[in-house]
Amino acid sequence: MRIRALRDSLEGTELDGYLVAREVDILYITGFRGGRYLLIPVDGECTLYVYGVDYEAAKSALGEVNVKLLKYEEDPHKTLSRDIRELGCRRVGFDSMSVRDYLQLQDALGDIELKEASEIVWSLRKIKDKDEIRLMKKAAEITVAGLKAAVDALNPGVREYEVAAEAEYAMRRAGAEGPAFETLVSSGPRAAYPHGWTTDRTIRDGELVIIDLGAKYRGYCSDLTRTVVVGKPSQKQKRLYEAVLEAQRKAVEVLREGVDAKMVDAEAREALGKQGYSKYFVHGLGHGVGLEIHEPPKINPGSKEKLEAGNVVTVEPGVYIPGYGGIRIEDTVHVTRSGVEKLTEASYELEIG
Amino acid sequence: MRIRALRDSLEGTELDGYLVAREVDILYITGFRGGRYLLIPVDGECTLYVYGVDYEAAKSALGEVNVKLLKYEEDPHKTLSRDIRELGCRRVGFDSMSVRDYLQLQDALGDIELKEASEIVWSLRKIKDKDEIRLMKKAAEITVAGLKAAVDALNPGVREYEVAAEAEYAMRRAGAEGPAFETLVSSGPRAAYPHGWTTDRTIRDGELVIIDLGAKYRGYCSDLTRTVVVGKPSQKQKRLYEAVLEAQRKAVEVLREGVDAKMVDAEAREALGKQGYSKYFVHGLGHGVGLEIHEPPKINPGSKEKLEAGNVVTVEPGVYIPGYGGIRIEDTVHVTRSGVEKLTEASYELEIG
Repeated sequence: MRIRALRDSLEGTELDGYLVAREVDILYITGFRGGRYLLIPVDGECTLYVYGVDYEAAKSALGEVNVKLLKYEEDPHKTLSRDIRELGCRRVGFDSMSVRDYLQLQDALGDIELKEASEIVWSLRKIKDKDEIRLMKKAAEITVAGLKAAVDALNPGVREYEVAAEAEYAMRRAGAEGPAFETLVSSGPRAAYPHGWTTDRTIRDGELVIIDLGAKYRGYCSDLTRTVVVGKPSQKQKRLYEAVLEAQRKAVEVLREGVDAKMVDAEAREALGKQGYSKYFVHGLGHGVGLEIHEPPKINPGSKEKLEAGNVVTVEPGVYIPGYGGIRIEDTVHVTRSGVEKLTEASYELEIG
Repeated sequence: MRIRALRDSLEGTELDGYLVAREVDILYITGFRGGRYLLIPVDGECTLYVYGVDYEAAKSALGEVNVKLLKYEEDPHKTLSRDIRELGCRRVGFDSMSVRDYLQLQDALGDIELKEASEIVWSLRKIKDKDEIRLMKKAAEITVAGLKAAVDALNPGVREYEVAAEAEYAMRRAGAEGPAFETLVSSGPRAAYPHGWTTDRTIRDGELVIIDLGAKYRGYCSDLTRTVVVGKPSQKQKRLYEAVLEAQRKAVEVLREGVDAKMVDAEAREALGKQGYSKYFVHGLGHGVGLEIHEPPKINPGSKEKLEAGNVVTVEPGVYIPGYGGIRIEDTVHVTRSGVEKLTEASYELEIG
């Protein structure tokens, strides 16, 4: 339960209550999967509002939180606003909700102010505690097992989706709840699209293959990319690969608590620039990972924040040459006071098989 | 491309432009996966705003749409509001965005009105066209293959996640992009939680096992649940199962274009009530399915809409008895003028193996 931590972070703000409206944030705060809203007043009892589908499970899982059943026929925003008024709250923050819900709830609340305050829950979620790091290590371990299965399946003649199938199967068998995102196996010229997806394309000897995958374990995500060549890599492939690997190394070298995120991005961009490849590095260097696959902090040229100890982020430079192919190397790392702890321990060999 | 359909549905409204802000809606309208915003003025050229990561792919995929590169350093809302002003729009609808984005964009737009109008894109998405039905049939076929693999794997002594692993592997091999949602294998007393999840629990002879799974195929989801007993079902299990199956039959019988959604829900609830089980049916009867696993129209006691031909919905009555177990039977069906076309053709046998 992280209700106390959330309450503590309301201190010094103008808010006298907080409404958690995103399911993943409810999971983070209570450990319970499900629920429509969690209301946390600075003073008074917390309430989790659930529909019938989650009621029995919520009651058995949650001790210190009041569980309230929502009926399909009722307007949840009227119920919520009545309870907020009864608690005497005057200014309630929330994490995130649809504009439709926001307008309806604000309307029902009348003169009670509803205030977007997603930074409050993100400031907690961004800093992973020991238990979270342990779960993320396990998620990373499972992901590495998936990568190994993918690499084992890679042969000239195999199709992209067959490789993805082996990776996901191995992750599931190793304990994953499923993929944290759609497994990407992108080969040949298709690898030039960084957000490409897995198709039934047949992989051929000598082609670059990007494998980007992640397991979800007890809610936590992992993110890992390797690029390999089935057979003998060409000189050009090796040169490109070395440049990307060097860019990752340079970024990891400067990554630690207190560093500007955009400076870490710049380090990788500069390393690629020295080889004349910076124009092919078309995305940001990384992003936070946790209960979701894309979280703050972002690491890109527009980032305004500093890295903090306890952040878990990806470091994923890449080059993408239209018509030719692409290379990306990505690890998930835990930022510490003195540097980083790598969670995804996997080989960097370009040549396989 | 469904830009014309979207423009047509702006006619007769006060809107002179529409901003598509959800990635899945951009996919629906353009067929392109990616992009930050799609701006559709009633008069003038459409623009897809993308970051570098999607730029090359968007340019090669989209002919009639202008593709504009967003830089990490720029404020996308300033860029957007400048373009909206230049197009002469005075009132722009949008599908859905975070409250933070909404407040920032409205601020940048000044006296130009930004209006929540998600019903415009949903009114299109709710009615599946022939191509979509074809893809959803394929997604359903793959899902049925996954169910068969799960049932084949079910033996006393197997663990829940091992069954899920076989189902997902079979779906991937059959062409799925991945699971449409976290595969649920919930056995014994755990089956009493309708939203339970898959654990490492060992399944034993004579236990009820709920298997709820769905494949994603070319963006489209499917949703199927069967409940089985490994070994010999008890009289009580059979009685409960027959009641749920009968409730599904009754609901499907009345399901067609023009029927009130809540009436379909009531039909199933009444059938279960006759057996004394309505208090154990703790969720709505169904939901729309398409590019997302949960879409309008909802079918529950609070539903206000009528079903329309072209809707694709689930029909999933269930009973959940705390401490005992649960049963759910779910199919994905295509609503037509005269009834329904079932997409998920799978056996209803309770007893297996």
